[in-house]
Amino acid sequence: MIAEIITTGTELLLGQIVNTNARFLSEKLAEKGIDVYWQTVVGDNPARLEEALSRAISRSDIIIGTGGLGPTSDDLTKEILAKILALPLVINSTWQKNMEEMFRQRGLEMTANNLKQALLPQGARLLYNDFGTAPGIWLEHQDKIIILLPGPPREMEPMFTEKVLPFLPATGSVLLSRILKVTGIGEAAMEEKIADLISSQINPTIAPLARANELHLRLTAKAETKERCLELLAKTEKDLVERLGSCIYARDNETMAGVVAKMLLVQKKTLACAESCTGGLLSHKLTQIPGSSAYFLQGLVTYSNEAKISLLGIPAEIIERYGPVSEEVAVKMACGARKLAKSDFGLAVTGIAGPSGGSKEKPVGLVYIALSDKKAFTVKKFIFPGKRENIKERAATSALNILRLHLMQKNG
Amino acid sequence: MIAEIITTGTELLLGQIVNTNARFLSEKLAEKGIDVYWQTVVGDNPARLEEALSRAISRSDIIIGTGGLGPTSDDLTKEILAKILALPLVINSTWQKNMEEMFRQRGLEMTANNLKQALLPQGARLLYNDFGTAPGIWLEHQDKIIILLPGPPREMEPMFTEKVLPFLPATGSVLLSRILKVTGIGEAAMEEKIADLISSQINPTIAPLARANELHLRLTAKAETKERCLELLAKTEKDLVERLGSCIYARDNETMAGVVAKMLLVQKKTLACAESCTGGLLSHKLTQIPGSSAYFLQGLVTYSNEAKISLLGIPAEIIERYGPVSEEVAVKMACGARKLAKSDFGLAVTGIAGPSGGSKEKPVGLVYIALSDKKAFTVKKFIFPGKRENIKERAATSALNILRLHLMQKNG
Repeated sequence: MIAEIITTGTELLLGQIVNTNARFLSEKLAEKGIDVYWQTVVGDNPARLEEALSRAISRSDIIIGTGGLGPTSDDLTKEILAKILALPLVINSTWQKNMEEMFRQRGLEMTANNLKQALLPQGARLLYNDFGTAPGIWLEHQDKIIILLPGPPREMEPMFTEKVLPFLPATGSVLLSRILKVTGIGEAAMEEKIADLISSQINPTIAPLARANELHLRLTAKAETKERCLELLAKTEKDLVERLGSCIYARDNETMAGVVAKMLLVQKKTLACAESCTGGLLSHKLTQIPGSSAYFLQGLVTYSNEAKISLLGIPAEIIERYGPVSEEVAVKMACGARKLAKSDFGLAVTGIAGPSGGSKEKPVGLVYIALSDKKAFTVKKFIFPGKRENIKERAATSALNILRLHLMQKNG
Repeated sequence: MIAEIITTGTELLLGQIVNTNARFLSEKLAEKGIDVYWQTVVGDNPARLEEALSRAISRSDIIIGTGGLGPTSDDLTKEILAKILALPLVINSTWQKNMEEMFRQRGLEMTANNLKQALLPQGARLLYNDFGTAPGIWLEHQDKIIILLPGPPREMEPMFTEKVLPFLPATGSVLLSRILKVTGIGEAAMEEKIADLISSQINPTIAPLARANELHLRLTAKAETKERCLELLAKTEKDLVERLGSCIYARDNETMAGVVAKMLLVQKKTLACAESCTGGLLSHKLTQIPGSSAYFLQGLVTYSNEAKISLLGIPAEIIERYGPVSEEVAVKMACGARKLAKSDFGLAVTGIAGPSGGSKEKPVGLVYIALSDKKAFTVKKFIFPGKRENIKERAATSALNILRLHLMQKNG
């Protein structure tokens, strides 16, 4: 069962809106085990709409179109479908009455062009629209299923969920995906470690995805039941964890901050932060998690040297000798933050987020991250690529990762 | 000049992500007056990718593909393009050296599969990627222009804006949009104030858009030249500013923090923050702006009561009597932050971000924001709707807006 999605709308081609209809339909079809091979966007143009619909009918089993069902002369999808299949358009009197009633209730006059919305290709079944005047249609033609739905998501989504999806043929299979989030290893190095699994494994498939500041592995399992999918996913996740170890830090919607928060809660530990180049982002990430006041005591955004001296008590001569972006200052910041807050951990970041402020010895992207507890401290040097916001993001996430690895050791 | 966009990626067909690349490219092409007739999404499948690319080359003048340029065996776009046009793939030694240098700088080993990224179809020009290891290509073949760009938006977007768009052929008419960002007024109230403009005006059109935590007005002008578009936009912007006044705070990519930063720089003023419920987000927003060290001295995330007492010197009895979420504590936080940093302004936020911690008198979403300068202070109460992240976001933006309005008065 191959499905294809055609969304019509000039706003899409002008880039004024993003194609959430295609995303919504694809996700729902995937959950039902129906493969979507194509998504096409065309404008309200008869020739191109005909080309797109004809091609879809020739190569796919299920064709789902959205948009172009309204009352205006631009709205042509039904007309063109009827032309392609050589079917006459006939008035659906039930919908005509329904529309007349809708207009009456709202105290409006129904204009003639509205009647166009009650025209269906002969043999098509009408799909009620509870939120608008354009109905959908379900048409079976030879061995194809063709479904047309209105464009506005608040009309289309409930129609698809309630009136289309349950009636599409069962595929006897379910598709389920899981995202594993990876850190502390480059994309290519990760792939080398698991290349044999990626290439040999068919179910679940394993796809590496490079996100803006993150590396993901997407596993997609196909099976007869959801339970069987979950089993397959669990097995492959285990294999991947064996190869990549603690580089895998989270699943699906979990975040690095969420994972660290959970560990701090379970281990009943508290944290204070001192940030320079991340400028509050580290504290922000930690306080995005509900209940963060249980472990997050305070954060200091010591942006100026004066702040580092007066708030954290770092000797001015240390800053002068090593510079504010240095191992030494990072360590002093972490220890200072911990002592000031009387917390179990102090986590500190200092670096050069750019675009200015870099030098040959200390380039933009250079970041030191230090972690201090009552007994010891560690400090690590990074050079992050990208723009200011990427550097801030990667520095904050790497700081959390250092704390995560430390909490894992303590627990392991 | 007809353009066509092909985005590859199984995530798109599975509905796991929304196609922001197609939107971005369409918008930029529309601004240049280049019509986009087709957007197509295909997975990482050689046969279908070939079908999509061949068809695009046959029917459009400019073909822009994104995705499938990475180091993995799934990444096939260049290979398939070379096959369609019967061109050999050749190593670009400049990019090979550039990659080796990138890996060296980051202290990582370059694995063999990375070399694939330096392969280009013969005759293609390399488009530098400043943010990743996959370069883009620009290939002119007969009368067609074929451009391939990497999939991640943070790599693709600057490449397209800087290295592709200026070099595409000019057309006869230009479409130009402008976003005006609005704050301090509800959507319906805003629409009432400008309803006549929205309905009567054709060029530019005016569309109100309610974003997650922001209210926008999108103006779209069409004219023969960019200059004429800008004139039309300026006239309508003036009409809208007359109606909405200082509620319009920014344009296009400007942010509230960016606007405030510019005012602080011009007026040579410095700022310190004290945050409770926003948890670092206010400082993070201010330090996203390059050069923020000129005005942002320090930020204190005084999450615990102890932090408010020990860092900001707020008397424990004030917190006890009024509670940490109160006008009184907000004012003390703002004054304390300013004095501690010896800055011109102190800006403070305290509130209940939820989901827990609310009561009948002090519900989730209650936020007090205080601003202090050397002479006086102001404090304002808000109740924000939404989830924890929405409340944090709206509180941080509202704090910046209070400072913006204050800086406008001082200047006006």
